[in-house]
Amino acid sequence: MSVSDEKAALDVSGIQKAVRWYPPKYDIRVEAVPIPQIIDPDDAIVKVKLAGLCGSDLHIYRGHEDVDADLTCGHELIGEVVALGPSFRPDATGRPELYSTLKVGDKVVSPFTVSCGECHFCRIGFTCRCIHSCLFGIPTLPGGQAQYARIPKAGGTLFNLSSLQSSSGSGEQPWDLSKLSDSSLLLLADILPTGVFAAMQALQHPKIAPILTGKPYPYGGFVPSSPVGQAQASTALQEGDKLLTIGIVGLGPVGVCATVSLLDILAGLGASQGLQYQVIAIDPIESRRTKMEAVYNAIDVSGKGSGRFAVASIEDGKKLASGWTNGAGCNAVLEVVGNNSALTLAYDIVRPFGIISSVGVHQEPPIPFTGRDVYNKNVSFDFGRCPVRAMFPIALEILLKRQDVFGGVGKEASLIDRIVSFDEAPQVYEDFDKGRCGKILFDPWR
Amino acid sequence: MSVSDEKAALDVSGIQKAVRWYPPKYDIRVEAVPIPQIIDPDDAIVKVKLAGLCGSDLHIYRGHEDVDADLTCGHELIGEVVALGPSFRPDATGRPELYSTLKVGDKVVSPFTVSCGECHFCRIGFTCRCIHSCLFGIPTLPGGQAQYARIPKAGGTLFNLSSLQSSSGSGEQPWDLSKLSDSSLLLLADILPTGVFAAMQALQHPKIAPILTGKPYPYGGFVPSSPVGQAQASTALQEGDKLLTIGIVGLGPVGVCATVSLLDILAGLGASQGLQYQVIAIDPIESRRTKMEAVYNAIDVSGKGSGRFAVASIEDGKKLASGWTNGAGCNAVLEVVGNNSALTLAYDIVRPFGIISSVGVHQEPPIPFTGRDVYNKNVSFDFGRCPVRAMFPIALEILLKRQDVFGGVGKEASLIDRIVSFDEAPQVYEDFDKGRCGKILFDPWR
Ligand SMILES: NC(=O)c1ccc[n+]([C@@H]2O[C@H](COP(=O)([O-])OP(=O)(O)OC[C@H]3O[C@@H](n4cnc5c(N)ncnc54)[C@H](O)[C@@H]3O)[C@@H](O)[C@H]2O)c1
Ligand SMILES: NC(=O)c1ccc[n+]([C@@H]2O[C@H](COP(=O)([O-])OP(=O)(O)OC[C@H]3O[C@@H](n4cnc5c(N)ncnc54)[C@H](O)[C@@H]3O)[C@@H](O)[C@H]2O)c1
Ligand SMILES: [Zn+2]
Ligand SMILES: [Zn+2]
Ligand SMILES: [Zn+2]
Ligand SMILES: [Zn+2]
Repeated sequence: MSVSDEKAALDVSGIQKAVRWYPPKYDIRVEAVPIPQIIDPDDAIVKVKLAGLCGSDLHIYRGHEDVDADLTCGHELIGEVVALGPSFRPDATGRPELYSTLKVGDKVVSPFTVSCGECHFCRIGFTCRCIHSCLFGIPTLPGGQAQYARIPKAGGTLFNLSSLQSSSGSGEQPWDLSKLSDSSLLLLADILPTGVFAAMQALQHPKIAPILTGKPYPYGGFVPSSPVGQAQASTALQEGDKLLTIGIVGLGPVGVCATVSLLDILAGLGASQGLQYQVIAIDPIESRRTKMEAVYNAIDVSGKGSGRFAVASIEDGKKLASGWTNGAGCNAVLEVVGNNSALTLAYDIVRPFGIISSVGVHQEPPIPFTGRDVYNKNVSFDFGRCPVRAMFPIALEILLKRQDVFGGVGKEASLIDRIVSFDEAPQVYEDFDKGRCGKILFDPWR
Repeated sequence: MSVSDEKAALDVSGIQKAVRWYPPKYDIRVEAVPIPQIIDPDDAIVKVKLAGLCGSDLHIYRGHEDVDADLTCGHELIGEVVALGPSFRPDATGRPELYSTLKVGDKVVSPFTVSCGECHFCRIGFTCRCIHSCLFGIPTLPGGQAQYARIPKAGGTLFNLSSLQSSSGSGEQPWDLSKLSDSSLLLLADILPTGVFAAMQALQHPKIAPILTGKPYPYGGFVPSSPVGQAQASTALQEGDKLLTIGIVGLGPVGVCATVSLLDILAGLGASQGLQYQVIAIDPIESRRTKMEAVYNAIDVSGKGSGRFAVASIEDGKKLASGWTNGAGCNAVLEVVGNNSALTLAYDIVRPFGIISSVGVHQEPPIPFTGRDVYNKNVSFDFGRCPVRAMFPIALEILLKRQDVFGGVGKEASLIDRIVSFDEAPQVYEDFDKGRCGKILFDPWR
């Protein structure tokens, strides 16, 4: 089939259903809009199988993002490639292999931002800050809560599940994706990689290295070796020093993903490096805590090892962070909320030389710390957007292991509450905004 | 000589000269005060040979620290142990080896804070946040600008140069300290380790790892290996990706130390890993820039490799940070000032996924960023106090290599401007505060 045939496979004159938002806020409508067309040689058109509703959609929904034009919502989708621009021909020149290997019919997940796969930022893995970066679900780039979506720079942007089946994972085992439901694969579009990112930012920080490596700061990093004798600052590390206490602030869908990912990595580090851990997962909303507890109970021992774990309200979380650490506080805190009360809580429960790994999307207000606060605690912060495209493989490995949590829909321990039709969009946006439900997916064809 | 003899060696009834500060601000007096005595078994009394005047002294001098009692100034000293508490007897029990090896007569440098060498924070190298941490030069712990100083937890706190002579450095070479002047060793008390710390925080950050290792994020850290094939997010790294652009904001004595340390480490990474670098050193004061240029010119090629280096005003620095990086900005910025204008400049010139390594001592004002600022750039921050005691060995290796810069006094390329008597204290505090001089040391016996 030639490229023009492929394009022809899509009814270019058609219209489709989409979930649309109107300014200034809270105005969700289901509308008929034109099916998107290829407008750049690097574009793909994807027929959407499932689209997610996400905490990040709420920032626009609530009118916090200063958007003044209507838009097609959503930035999480899984689907099938139905048309490709000319850059994807096998004989196209000047495009990297990622482009020539994408085919019509491939099953794909799209991360929530465009990434070309070619620029310096993409090459070093900071895909969400690609020089061509663009967020789905803004007025200039219609989102995934539609029957079809246009994906710019599709060779770099899309995660090609079909070609992955025949490829191999880490440890050179072939990836077996057959047991994965579409609803669980949809989580790769954003929230699972973002959860992994939150955990990894904390655990890879050089201030954590002494606990993991048993070498005192600053020798855990690239500095060759520790000079001996009196050059030492202290007595040797003791067995009890290999204890990490980590807080998670916010147990929405992303916070649950962060917690599951963190436990998985900590269990691995415990097995390989003798690490002990204590994890404190905090949310003020009881239903969110109940979900987190059910998810935790569903994880088998290989995914959580033998550390200490608690789900707590804000007040209880503060008490545990102090009580479990002789008053020192957490080595790291994952902030998965996106407001200043969460950042303040993270600061309160972090210890000196601790890390705040913040993936919450923060808005206009100044961040709530004085210079003295941050100096006096030697705090490290990592802020910002997850480079989802770069985190896919690690997230996929966790997804494969954690079908107990991510596989089902609507069960007590399922992260995903329901799969609904677009007609329910106004209602589920409102419910999700009020914390009355967990993760919701849309089936555009229902 | 028994411990009581040792104590007797010091005239306990004597008085000494000291530089003292009176609230609310700018009030420096040279006074006669009692010689400090051993009051805790872990104390040492050190006879001060040289004491430093430092940018950190200016925070108290200017009345920014809310101190309302008079105090003996200073937190940088080199000297000789003249008395030790009972914990240091060879037969004392319950104290680590660092205590039993310290002797009367040993030549020592004290970091600017107390660290016991025993607690968890000390063991993992975060010595400046020791559970017994205390800053020298506050009302409750008289500082080093005196003829004698009491050093709490002296086994952990003091860096013992005498015992180091007979010990070995990295690469198992014995340390040869004979060519080091006391004035250069004094820099180990604070500003050289702090400069190294500023550089290392940036270079050891996982967001720099892709540039150093050639592996895309997040695989530079402890994550085992990169899954292959379509799991990749992008094309492979290219030769040109191994380029680091680093800004230094503030060229006071600490900023110069940070720059020299950074260049030394970058030269090493260039030699071992083929790294290219660009360094932009920024200060609004011309005399500070002139000093930085002279220092740079004095460094031989082994200490700076073949990267690109510029000293710049604020405006020129902004232009270079953009011009040298196709508008992307610096991979990391070292903030070595301690005010919000410097933090704002650091943010302006850092690129997405960049790091701000802040060692400036910040005060009451809120840090000057909105949530959107930090989210949108994926900025990482490291704030706080240098764990000087843990950084000593690395700083000492740089000091040994960089006698061209740190060895002399009063020459064009010398970091240290003058060694003066206490009588000049009121004048040099004023001059240093106004940026009219560089690093000044006091000789308490002059
Ligand atoms: N960095 C990224 O790339 C990225 C990607 C996806 C989502 N996000 C962001 O992650 C955040 C979480 O997403 P979500 O879908 O889970 O959102 P959500 O709104 O469903 O969940 C947020 C949770 O935080 C809790 N919370 C509120 N204030 C709190 C406080 N002070 N302490 C503890 N918990 C508190 C709420 O009760 C709620 O359960 C959002 O800001 C979202 O935009 C960021
Ligand atoms: N973190 C630590 O452990 C530690 C240790 C020692 C010193 N310090 C702090 O490091 C800082 C620097 O110390 P110093 O002795 O070099 O101080 P200094 O006052 O001599 O030098 C500061 C320099 O910053 C410059 N400057 C001011 N505003 C600037 C701006 N917006 N952009 C660029 N440069 C600007 C000034 O012109 C000056 O040359 C101080 O805050 C000091 O307290 C911290
Ligand atoms: Zn999302
Ligand atoms: Zn790109
Ligand atoms: Zn100092
Ligand atoms: Zn200690």
